[in-house]
Amino acid sequence: MTLEQEIIDLCRTARRAAPALARASTDAKNDALRAGAAALRSRQTELLAANAIDVAAATGSPPAFIDRLTLTASRIEAMAAGLEQVADLPDPVGEVITQWTRPNGLEIRQVRVPLGVIGIIYESRPNVTADAAALCLKSGNAVVLRGGSEAFRTNCLIADVLSEAASAIPPGCLALVRTTDREAVRALLRQSDFIDVIIPRGGEELIRAITETSRIPVIQHFSGVCQLYVDRAADLAMAERLCMNAKVQRPGVCNAIENLLVHREVAARFLPAMAARLEAAGVELRGCPETCRLVPTARPASEADWSTEYLDLVLSVKIVASIDEAIAFIRRYGSGLADAIVTTDQAAADRFTGDVDSAAVFVNASTRFTDGFEFGFGAEIGISTNRLHARGPMGLRELTTYKYVVRGDGQVRG
Amino acid sequence: MTLEQEIIDLCRTARRAAPALARASTDAKNDALRAGAAALRSRQTELLAANAIDVAAATGSPPAFIDRLTLTASRIEAMAAGLEQVADLPDPVGEVITQWTRPNGLEIRQVRVPLGVIGIIYESRPNVTADAAALCLKSGNAVVLRGGSEAFRTNCLIADVLSEAASAIPPGCLALVRTTDREAVRALLRQSDFIDVIIPRGGEELIRAITETSRIPVIQHFSGVCQLYVDRAADLAMAERLCMNAKVQRPGVCNAIENLLVHREVAARFLPAMAARLEAAGVELRGCPETCRLVPTARPASEADWSTEYLDLVLSVKIVASIDEAIAFIRRYGSGLADAIVTTDQAAADRFTGDVDSAAVFVNASTRFTDGFEFGFGAEIGISTNRLHARGPMGLRELTTYKYVVRGDGQVRG
Repeated sequence: MTLEQEIIDLCRTARRAAPALARASTDAKNDALRAGAAALRSRQTELLAANAIDVAAATGSPPAFIDRLTLTASRIEAMAAGLEQVADLPDPVGEVITQWTRPNGLEIRQVRVPLGVIGIIYESRPNVTADAAALCLKSGNAVVLRGGSEAFRTNCLIADVLSEAASAIPPGCLALVRTTDREAVRALLRQSDFIDVIIPRGGEELIRAITETSRIPVIQHFSGVCQLYVDRAADLAMAERLCMNAKVQRPGVCNAIENLLVHREVAARFLPAMAARLEAAGVELRGCPETCRLVPTARPASEADWSTEYLDLVLSVKIVASIDEAIAFIRRYGSGLADAIVTTDQAAADRFTGDVDSAAVFVNASTRFTDGFEFGFGAEIGISTNRLHARGPMGLRELTTYKYVVRGDGQVRG
Repeated sequence: MTLEQEIIDLCRTARRAAPALARASTDAKNDALRAGAAALRSRQTELLAANAIDVAAATGSPPAFIDRLTLTASRIEAMAAGLEQVADLPDPVGEVITQWTRPNGLEIRQVRVPLGVIGIIYESRPNVTADAAALCLKSGNAVVLRGGSEAFRTNCLIADVLSEAASAIPPGCLALVRTTDREAVRALLRQSDFIDVIIPRGGEELIRAITETSRIPVIQHFSGVCQLYVDRAADLAMAERLCMNAKVQRPGVCNAIENLLVHREVAARFLPAMAARLEAAGVELRGCPETCRLVPTARPASEADWSTEYLDLVLSVKIVASIDEAIAFIRRYGSGLADAIVTTDQAAADRFTGDVDSAAVFVNASTRFTDGFEFGFGAEIGISTNRLHARGPMGLRELTTYKYVVRGDGQVRG
């Protein structure tokens, strides 16, 4: 059997199994998730052994890569607990989103239903295998997983453990591409007859390559170039706390800020102390000429800096003459993920939230809250910077679509 | 300037103008729509003259084609009235879809915002120029229109009339591709940096060609193979009325039925009279062998018949042994647009609405209600059989996305 045929079979099987999962009861899905959690715990030794082979094969890779790849007892426990948390979440399927009655008596209900079959393509972290499978299962979607080849043995075993434990779930609904051949990804992205949407999880390069290749709609977020704007009416102590949090608390994530914008009227009061505190936390500063005059330790920012996602302890700083200039900067250089204003001026806040068209716009809060858990979704399959379907943090609901169910008593159209 | 460069300029201008339209007030948008309506009426003579040139150039085309292309005084009045109706609809932009407060005090609002720039590609009917422009404008979206080349002069003049009348709307937000070169469509479909979504309006061939070419997400509906299933517990008089309406009232539209499924237990009582009534209305019947025995005038249906969208007075009829067989038939041959069951059995109705995964599922009502106006949206840009973003009839809301606006008082992530 050719690789292409293997992928087609896997996807077609998932497509055929999907309707049965779509109508599975909440209890059946939750039982499967809890059984999966128990099985991950009870087969910890096997999982660690399989993972050790993957890790050994990756010897020589950068430490951060090895770290992402490595399972530990506590990471296995976290996966298991994650499955149980998803079981505890409300089932989105069947929810009546809205309903109304027409003058002719037709009762129209908009009912939430699963998307169908979801393809998830991800990189080295093997926990994604369990996390993504759980979210797809709970939302009634069949899933075809393709993990990083470096975690191949670990991913295969996690999928086996979950499938065996979730025996009440239609077989084929939790599929894993079991080859490390990279051609498999391209084959997967051609299966638009069987897969409804692709969600890539990984770096910008992976996501761009998938988006360019896929014949299936892709929900993506390319990069997170987020901004914090300190307005002239800002509470400067609050601004300092928010800036520290948004840059330093976890710099390697998409919702950390890369650019700090400061209104000229408060720059001299705000920036020197802010810069000292950032530098004390290890942050390298790059500034516009005016910033560099106020903060001599900052090196000049290049044009490329303003649109760079550092994912690191680096921050570019620009002094702006007005909120208009801040908004224009965000439109030009930001990636549309998350932006924040610090201000006590309600009109400025309204202006900012109205005109900054990012997935999440914050007033007096850290951009780091752009996250499905922090939003209260109880889960996150990813963050979308698409404009269609779902935008911002995506939880279980964002893995569903809807259908209209219309009940009448014999109405015909005139 | 090359054609590609011309298209890029048009799309880039629309993209740059879009934010100003996104924040335009409801009054400003409505004034523009009403001014456009008045201008269409006052420039009727010019419009008819431009259209007469297009119609003359199409001499020799099929009558239905000429009819679609032709403007009349009453069609111009209908376009004008359509603009006024859109002005009267509620503005979806700024609507708070949902809001909640997190335990840490963050107030999260999900706020409706325009998609951005919408590309509309359509065929010969020139009224689409006004209709689509109105819906995009009201929903705060810039639009790039590409109409059929046979209506070129008419479309250009309609766009001019509307643009001149809507002078308060940012220029560039209502763009029309002003060339009949077919390469322009391909160039348009490459402008993913400037256009957020493509909505094709036309035949299946046009939509498939666009979907295969586009680098921009496409919201489409390929075809309407709709079914009416007469359950064994059906009110047969109601079933007859619904079948007549769904097939005969307007056979050339996507939400008319192509297949009639009848439970075996009621077939002998139902089908002969139903067939006679359909045939009296000019409907040609194609049947499964069992149907042909009950209805000798029916010719045998081929396998291809079951998945064919006739768009004509032709109906295929199949007798099924169970609701399960009906549901399996719909999954296999239907296009996922609209399907109906006639039954007095609540369990059968629930089974059908649960397991038939089409955009609209009807109980005891005609599939012909699958329509934005009939749903009460007050408008329709099209019907989607996509699963992502919007499904079923699309009105103004379906031309929007959302952003999260989050207000805090200094919250940082721990």
